[in-house]
Amino acid sequence: MKTAITEMFAIEAPVFAFSHCRDVVVATSKAGGFGVLGAAWMTPEHLEQELKWIDDHIDGKPYGVDMVFTSTASDISGSKNPREILPREQVDYINGLMTRDGVPELPQEEVDGWYQDYAANLSFTQPESEALFEVAMRHPVRFVVSALGIAPPHVIQRVHDAGLKFGALVGSARQAQKQVEAGVDVIVAQGTEAGGHTGDVASMVLWPEVVDAVAPVPVLAAGGIGRGRQMAAALALGAEGIWCGTIWLGTVESELAPDMRDVLYAARSADAVITYGYTGKPCRALRSKFTEAWAAQEAPEPLKVPYQSILSGEPFRRAERAHRKDWMTYAAGQVVGQVNEPKTVKQVMYDMLNEYLETTEKLNTILEA
Amino acid sequence: MKTAITEMFAIEAPVFAFSHCRDVVVATSKAGGFGVLGAAWMTPEHLEQELKWIDDHIDGKPYGVDMVFTSTASDISGSKNPREILPREQVDYINGLMTRDGVPELPQEEVDGWYQDYAANLSFTQPESEALFEVAMRHPVRFVVSALGIAPPHVIQRVHDAGLKFGALVGSARQAQKQVEAGVDVIVAQGTEAGGHTGDVASMVLWPEVVDAVAPVPVLAAGGIGRGRQMAAALALGAEGIWCGTIWLGTVESELAPDMRDVLYAARSADAVITYGYTGKPCRALRSKFTEAWAAQEAPEPLKVPYQSILSGEPFRRAERAHRKDWMTYAAGQVVGQVNEPKTVKQVMYDMLNEYLETTEKLNTILEA
Repeated sequence: MKTAITEMFAIEAPVFAFSHCRDVVVATSKAGGFGVLGAAWMTPEHLEQELKWIDDHIDGKPYGVDMVFTSTASDISGSKNPREILPREQVDYINGLMTRDGVPELPQEEVDGWYQDYAANLSFTQPESEALFEVAMRHPVRFVVSALGIAPPHVIQRVHDAGLKFGALVGSARQAQKQVEAGVDVIVAQGTEAGGHTGDVASMVLWPEVVDAVAPVPVLAAGGIGRGRQMAAALALGAEGIWCGTIWLGTVESELAPDMRDVLYAARSADAVITYGYTGKPCRALRSKFTEAWAAQEAPEPLKVPYQSILSGEPFRRAERAHRKDWMTYAAGQVVGQVNEPKTVKQVMYDMLNEYLETTEKLNTILEA
Repeated sequence: MKTAITEMFAIEAPVFAFSHCRDVVVATSKAGGFGVLGAAWMTPEHLEQELKWIDDHIDGKPYGVDMVFTSTASDISGSKNPREILPREQVDYINGLMTRDGVPELPQEEVDGWYQDYAANLSFTQPESEALFEVAMRHPVRFVVSALGIAPPHVIQRVHDAGLKFGALVGSARQAQKQVEAGVDVIVAQGTEAGGHTGDVASMVLWPEVVDAVAPVPVLAAGGIGRGRQMAAALALGAEGIWCGTIWLGTVESELAPDMRDVLYAARSADAVITYGYTGKPCRALRSKFTEAWAAQEAPEPLKVPYQSILSGEPFRRAERAHRKDWMTYAAGQVVGQVNEPKTVKQVMYDMLNEYLETTEKLNTILEA
């Protein structure tokens, strides 16, 4: 295949895999696509370890790193016990519901120690982002992506000076234009059907709008893509490649735990709902008793970023320990309805490209008539 | 072009135009597409008049009629003064806001008489639907569509006995399967980005899901289509044709009033929001002080169908009389961002098919490389 993106990164197929799992990153790049490691939640030490592993296994194929550059994040790294900075009302609401529903509590001493570690990873200040960026730049990454926020000029300059590309996720044409003005080389336009933090405009409308707004800067289409027909639709809408996340969660290579895999395979498209309970911002995740608790009329207001994420860690871990699938949730897009069994990353890629070919052929027969 | 739908209806392009405006219906059918008149809000007398006009102007081209078949609608036709059956809290809330914002009230005697007429059109009982259906069957309609609900078996049988086709709008694969079991010939799968009443799943995910669920029954793609790239995406996703509504609102042939046209042309994609204020059910419409009033924390609960529609008639008319565009809203999908100036229906069709051709050619160059 040949698009502006396959040319830019010298890859066979313009299929980008966003994943928190290094095995998925390696497998997609080796299958002719391009793996991007989600690093925002990692400490610099953890990221160093993951990139080292990737370098040792990826056979020199290109890959990227995704992080956040937000200027508004609260610095919570200095808090003695992060649980104590959370308002009791919200903590007691969700944990009380779980207790009444028979989900065992965690031992208190474990909770305290674990909150401390967990919260440290959720502190997205500029110095922390730059520390992650420094780690990435010591490895042969080819693509640095901002999942949130406009990166400082010196960061984008460093990327360009090293001959690499900088990308940014957006949910609107206006955000896309601002990122391009900041020097971004590739826009990832993400429709509302995507997993995780997402805007209101659907991919069908958003992608051509963004493509027109930033041309000739190439656009990767994100949100709602997991098979060849959707890939063909994305390229028809003007994208030069695709960016998928949800579709890799259920692969053999994914590190998702068995219980969560069951939840994922069972979910239908309409089960990927917008919730404020996950992080405090609109985030698409799998419907469960947890998401419904925060959508209930009697629910207290979810906390602001990053406090709601800190708060949600304990209920998530309780559900996990007790194998309570009815309380489990995970950030996922509406394509989750297409993820019903474990497949290798290679098989997912093969099926997708095969259906893409069939689709292009079918479109030609419509016109030949 | 040749798809299952162009064959079924013997039309040149599988482009269906849903419109409340007879001129749009006639213009699309004459331009090689297929016009469908939205009749749900009409009285049988009004529908008779519209179909007579269409028959006189459409030069024998095929067209259709869209109505609702709901078994749960309340019968409000017998109420003496429909305004009196509405709870004061909601009526006073919205009208009070408008008064405080300087929008003149309507003369009371006019309000009463008008409520009576208006409410009569919003009573969607089975006998009323069947009365509309009887009118339609006296005219050369080729396609009867249920916008809501499963039509009674004898209705679908009558359509089939006359050699016509029956269609149904759905927002999920499960609804689509139920409609097919009831004997429906064509499924219109409508994604969340569509105008009017809409589900949660976006077109990118919904269409292929519905296509697979009901194959070989042909699917028309609705929600998010207004240009050739989107049409190509719909056919790539497995649809046999497209169904558009919003895109015709701004055409020269549309009967939309000048103020509302201005509102429409100025709206961006993100301005088409889900509101409960329009009808009491989730309905995508243009953001205004009216939709924001019902989304406010202090807003009373919107009424159930059809009472919220009856309630919203007075604020809509007040805004119209006073030329207060900031209070105007209209059901529209996210493609409204693409509707920025008046064009003829023929021009919209021409531009769409032209871009469709270009898009198919571009997809071929991606593979030839």
